[in-house]
Amino acid sequence: MTDRTPARADGRAADELRPVTITRNWLDHAEGSVLVEFGRTRVLCAASFTEGVPRWRKGSGQGWVTAEYAMLPRSTNTRSDRESVKGKIGGRTHEISRLIGRSLRAVVDTAQLGENTIVLDCDVLQADGGTRTAAVTGAYVALADAISWARGRGIVKASRQPLTGSVSAVSVGVVDGVPVLDLPYVEDVRAETDMNVVVTGEGTFVEVQGTAEGAPFDRAELDALLDLALTGTSRLAALQAEALAR
Amino acid sequence: MTDRTPARADGRAADELRPVTITRNWLDHAEGSVLVEFGRTRVLCAASFTEGVPRWRKGSGQGWVTAEYAMLPRSTNTRSDRESVKGKIGGRTHEISRLIGRSLRAVVDTAQLGENTIVLDCDVLQADGGTRTAAVTGAYVALADAISWARGRGIVKASRQPLTGSVSAVSVGVVDGVPVLDLPYVEDVRAETDMNVVVTGEGTFVEVQGTAEGAPFDRAELDALLDLALTGTSRLAALQAEALAR
Amino acid sequence: MTDRTPARADGRAADELRPVTITRNWLDHAEGSVLVEFGRTRVLCAASFTEGVPRWRKGSGQGWVTAEYAMLPRSTNTRSDRESVKGKIGGRTHEISRLIGRSLRAVVDTAQLGENTIVLDCDVLQADGGTRTAAVTGAYVALADAISWARGRGIVKASRQPLTGSVSAVSVGVVDGVPVLDLPYVEDVRAETDMNVVVTGEGTFVEVQGTAEGAPFDRAELDALLDLALTGTSRLAALQAEALAR
Amino acid sequence: MTDRTPARADGRAADELRPVTITRNWLDHAEGSVLVEFGRTRVLCAASFTEGVPRWRKGSGQGWVTAEYAMLPRSTNTRSDRESVKGKIGGRTHEISRLIGRSLRAVVDTAQLGENTIVLDCDVLQADGGTRTAAVTGAYVALADAISWARGRGIVKASRQPLTGSVSAVSVGVVDGVPVLDLPYVEDVRAETDMNVVVTGEGTFVEVQGTAEGAPFDRAELDALLDLALTGTSRLAALQAEALAR
Amino acid sequence: MTDRTPARADGRAADELRPVTITRNWLDHAEGSVLVEFGRTRVLCAASFTEGVPRWRKGSGQGWVTAEYAMLPRSTNTRSDRESVKGKIGGRTHEISRLIGRSLRAVVDTAQLGENTIVLDCDVLQADGGTRTAAVTGAYVALADAISWARGRGIVKASRQPLTGSVSAVSVGVVDGVPVLDLPYVEDVRAETDMNVVVTGEGTFVEVQGTAEGAPFDRAELDALLDLALTGTSRLAALQAEALAR
Amino acid sequence: MTDRTPARADGRAADELRPVTITRNWLDHAEGSVLVEFGRTRVLCAASFTEGVPRWRKGSGQGWVTAEYAMLPRSTNTRSDRESVKGKIGGRTHEISRLIGRSLRAVVDTAQLGENTIVLDCDVLQADGGTRTAAVTGAYVALADAISWARGRGIVKASRQPLTGSVSAVSVGVVDGVPVLDLPYVEDVRAETDMNVVVTGEGTFVEVQGTAEGAPFDRAELDALLDLALTGTSRLAALQAEALAR
Repeated sequence: MTDRTPARADGRAADELRPVTITRNWLDHAEGSVLVEFGRTRVLCAASFTEGVPRWRKGSGQGWVTAEYAMLPRSTNTRSDRESVKGKIGGRTHEISRLIGRSLRAVVDTAQLGENTIVLDCDVLQADGGTRTAAVTGAYVALADAISWARGRGIVKASRQPLTGSVSAVSVGVVDGVPVLDLPYVEDVRAETDMNVVVTGEGTFVEVQGTAEGAPFDRAELDALLDLALTGTSRLAALQAEALAR
Repeated sequence: MTDRTPARADGRAADELRPVTITRNWLDHAEGSVLVEFGRTRVLCAASFTEGVPRWRKGSGQGWVTAEYAMLPRSTNTRSDRESVKGKIGGRTHEISRLIGRSLRAVVDTAQLGENTIVLDCDVLQADGGTRTAAVTGAYVALADAISWARGRGIVKASRQPLTGSVSAVSVGVVDGVPVLDLPYVEDVRAETDMNVVVTGEGTFVEVQGTAEGAPFDRAELDALLDLALTGTSRLAALQAEALAR
Repeated sequence: MTDRTPARADGRAADELRPVTITRNWLDHAEGSVLVEFGRTRVLCAASFTEGVPRWRKGSGQGWVTAEYAMLPRSTNTRSDRESVKGKIGGRTHEISRLIGRSLRAVVDTAQLGENTIVLDCDVLQADGGTRTAAVTGAYVALADAISWARGRGIVKASRQPLTGSVSAVSVGVVDGVPVLDLPYVEDVRAETDMNVVVTGEGTFVEVQGTAEGAPFDRAELDALLDLALTGTSRLAALQAEALAR
Repeated sequence: MTDRTPARADGRAADELRPVTITRNWLDHAEGSVLVEFGRTRVLCAASFTEGVPRWRKGSGQGWVTAEYAMLPRSTNTRSDRESVKGKIGGRTHEISRLIGRSLRAVVDTAQLGENTIVLDCDVLQADGGTRTAAVTGAYVALADAISWARGRGIVKASRQPLTGSVSAVSVGVVDGVPVLDLPYVEDVRAETDMNVVVTGEGTFVEVQGTAEGAPFDRAELDALLDLALTGTSRLAALQAEALAR
Repeated sequence: MTDRTPARADGRAADELRPVTITRNWLDHAEGSVLVEFGRTRVLCAASFTEGVPRWRKGSGQGWVTAEYAMLPRSTNTRSDRESVKGKIGGRTHEISRLIGRSLRAVVDTAQLGENTIVLDCDVLQADGGTRTAAVTGAYVALADAISWARGRGIVKASRQPLTGSVSAVSVGVVDGVPVLDLPYVEDVRAETDMNVVVTGEGTFVEVQGTAEGAPFDRAELDALLDLALTGTSRLAALQAEALAR
Repeated sequence: MTDRTPARADGRAADELRPVTITRNWLDHAEGSVLVEFGRTRVLCAASFTEGVPRWRKGSGQGWVTAEYAMLPRSTNTRSDRESVKGKIGGRTHEISRLIGRSLRAVVDTAQLGENTIVLDCDVLQADGGTRTAAVTGAYVALADAISWARGRGIVKASRQPLTGSVSAVSVGVVDGVPVLDLPYVEDVRAETDMNVVVTGEGTFVEVQGTAEGAPFDRAELDALLDLALTGTSRLAALQAEALAR
């Protein structure tokens, strides 16, 4: 596919990820923490393990995993007002927080967690496109570390690993008529179609969220984008495994 | 496909919509209004036309279309607290409002609207699954009526129709291993995979939002669900056209 | 009195109600529900029965009845912003919610209810004056249905009927110097004096709320308005009884 | 009427006001300010004159008068949480603020004010029943002073007095079957019927707000309460005049 | 020091307090209440005693003392919007509330209080500089009264006095190069350096908060300001003792 | 002084700072950005330069510098809830934001800035005591960079440097009776007295904020703490200069 691709601004092939780094234990206090970078996008993912579950889940014997996503005011090119100062959380923030939470729960057997909660805080320190997909990818590694921590201390007593698999995410889009993988901001704003895909380590889908930003897209484009996404998440799954093996 | 489907609770074939009714002009004041019913799901869609655009769009010469979705407290089986009383809008509400707005803008040429705004209020009077897809489907008809109203009065002066096509939406999901169309609440809660698909009258995609509620899904399931969705939206597009022709 | 009345815009006599319809069971889920129409004013009243009472009432052995009133954004001629989006409830909304709650409690023996709560949601689908009086009138019928439902299931075990009577409400006002009954919006905005009166089926007062919009009013005008109101509520009580008998 | 009245706790006759004091110029900064006392109820009323009107009134040539009512946390027997800390204003506060504003506007010719705004802040320093009626009564005097101030400085240039009359308010209620005037807290909580009446200096009604707290009330009771109220407001009007004459 | 001081607008010497009055029992309901005046600054301090402590302190056997500060809208020269209406508390309000709470806790042995809470509400009725220092000074007296009340009733059973000392506060500042004590508003706005000092009856420091409003200050200025402050708080401590002795 | 100091947990002398690092240009987008570390405390300071000033300052010809401080939820040992989710900013956050803003404005000649605004966002990535003092120290460097950026581009045209000096801050406290410099969390919670001091590069004071956490402190302790603080800020000023020279 790479040969029909016009030069991308950063010289990548259409099916190439940006340089990805996953730095574990970036924080001293959190039970798991990762600084994940997709190119210049930089997201700090902190996993907080606490005993107990939200009220509606008490007595179920099951744990809970949830996530909160936010952007620092100057993570973007133009400063945005703080949501804490505005006194309310915007729709986009809500939407992404929910997406990250669902994505992680897809690979957790909450019964094995016991009545414990893990919150994943994903704070975007610098944004250059793909912040939500970087967040899912990094949060999985922080989650894995927090679960290891809890099993190591005997707080999670399950004999079976609560993680049923790994999960990562990537964005794909059609830019100037060409499907490309892992869009930085400059491509994102020009994309006709924009899709975020969350995929397990086994290559099955957890979330597919495609949006026509310009003209609606047809089945062939959708298929091409899904192919690209699977290429990307397969590479990300390998990078996650490497990071966790270190 | 229908023969391998076990009986659905309401006796429908897997690829069959619930009875759909689209009642135009349900309100006296709104420039366009529709009561749309997908089975027992009942959504009131009101289109409000106002001159002027939000501040960030002033001077662009372009119009704006946006939507707000909400559920009445007792639209559901158990009463939910009002978001106005809680003082904040939940993530799900935000997410669906944004989805409806994006879906409608996909078939509007905002330059033809002039600097005018149309707000689509989609209030769920009764919920039985598929409220967001019913909302998109009904809101399109209310929008079409509001645009006709504005063109009829010469407020929108464009010689070209601001609507570039029609748009409708339907839910599809895998229930007990079988892909089914237009899920009522009882199926929705049991679905392993849940997908909302927004499609133009020409059969191209505006939004594809699939979520694994249980096990992740594979490419074959995704394809089957997309096929079903296109069957449904093709039928809905016909019903919209009929309603607008009356 | 009718002969000294100048023609009202809708041709009614001064002491005549608009066409009133009370449609029970408009919703599938609620324990009681009514779509009440006073002319073009249309209010959906849903009664939600839940076991338990607010904290401050626990252990009292007594039940609780409360109400929430709201208007859909496009129930009015000009769209109003949603209170959920603004993040706070306006004074008028609060005031009417409290009025409806007090009016209903005036005919409920909460000791007979047991420690159960009934919430009446009154959502204005279309507004043309008199929304609060329509809401009280419809909410009473929804409340009666919810109580029957609870007694039928043995959830409310009282041998004595918790309802001690019926209650309805109507607006009266002085328009162009003439006292008139049940004002639609066009009369309401021109009224010098505006009064909402809540009356039991036995003709005793629950609430009298009169406001001079223009010049203050004297005792004779007050008396004439109260006479008119009693005419109206007597007719509404009969319509409620008819509806409940169906 | 006094002879059939059982002894009131404070020894008053049924138609007797509590000791009322109206202290003008209690504050140094405000254009008008009054500390009004109805027995132990103590309300500080400050009138703030500002040039300009709210946006929706600009260009009308007319002024605006509005009010805000609030209670200090420890004005009551049990401390209540601050509404500023709770982040929202309660229904009762809203309702009373609106009542005070409407009452004062009933005696103001806003055209004579020019495009100026007067805000009346009524803060309850100590509450012992009748806070809203004390507030209306005191606020009128503060308003009169603010208008004099503005006319004296030539800011309000109208040759005609913007005040078209005076206004005061009093509570009446039925306690142990007996109609009584100006209820302190101990009577208020036991009242079967509770009514607040706002009356001009000429004895015409601005607001009549009666509520059955226990059993609904009949026409005779309503009449007796209105008679009592007029007795009270007539006395209050005299006290206001005296205070303004000092 | 007084001879090198240019005349202050109100004729005071540089090290002289404004006239201070401390009126106890200004309210009927509160367990302790004080109207404190520093010149034209007038703050109402109400102490509310309640059994029980905040959740995070339960089971500690220790009590809690906290404070809330607020300004009435027209306490100032120009009316400010109510924080309850704005729906949030400003930074300055928060800061001062916290300062008052800390200052009082510095002289309370919470173990002797038992699990009881005292809230000090400090509401500024009129502001003319030094509202926070007047609030600390008055709140101490109200606190002392509330503690006496609780000990008198045997609710606080400690044999040892829960108050370990007294506390008062004063502002000092450099105006036109001269350090002065207890600044009214006209001096406050011109001060190059502004300092609030909270001091015990024994002359030790509880809080020292100095801010360079104009040019940074040096050690000599800091020392001169601290000297002045100690002069003021020593006088205030005497006035508090006198008030409590009455 | 160091010889009478008992061993600190981290082996430092009483008058020794933790290792301090100041990393400039940590972000790509901001006009100035610094990651500042005081031991394990890590604060990201981003300076955003925007043309224009807040409304109340328009037409003054002067610029504005302000700051916002916040902590990431898992910067601390135990996760704290997000202020954006709670919908309001806590008192401590407000207080520190205001402190940072005032501290920076003390060394800015806003007239030289022209009508431009610089916002300093100080986000605590990891907290181990002294977050506000690290924030002031880092923010100054980010501010200097933003001003250089604006002068370099000719956006700030002043011939004179808008910065009139440098500013840094440090905490000091009395722990186990010994005054120590730059307290980490373990010392901070045990400190009897806690003081934050903001000092210019020339050694004059901008802010002195001392609080008795346990017993009140006397003049001698205050003097010892101020001496220590000046030692620390003198070292910090040198480190800032070094960083800016790189």
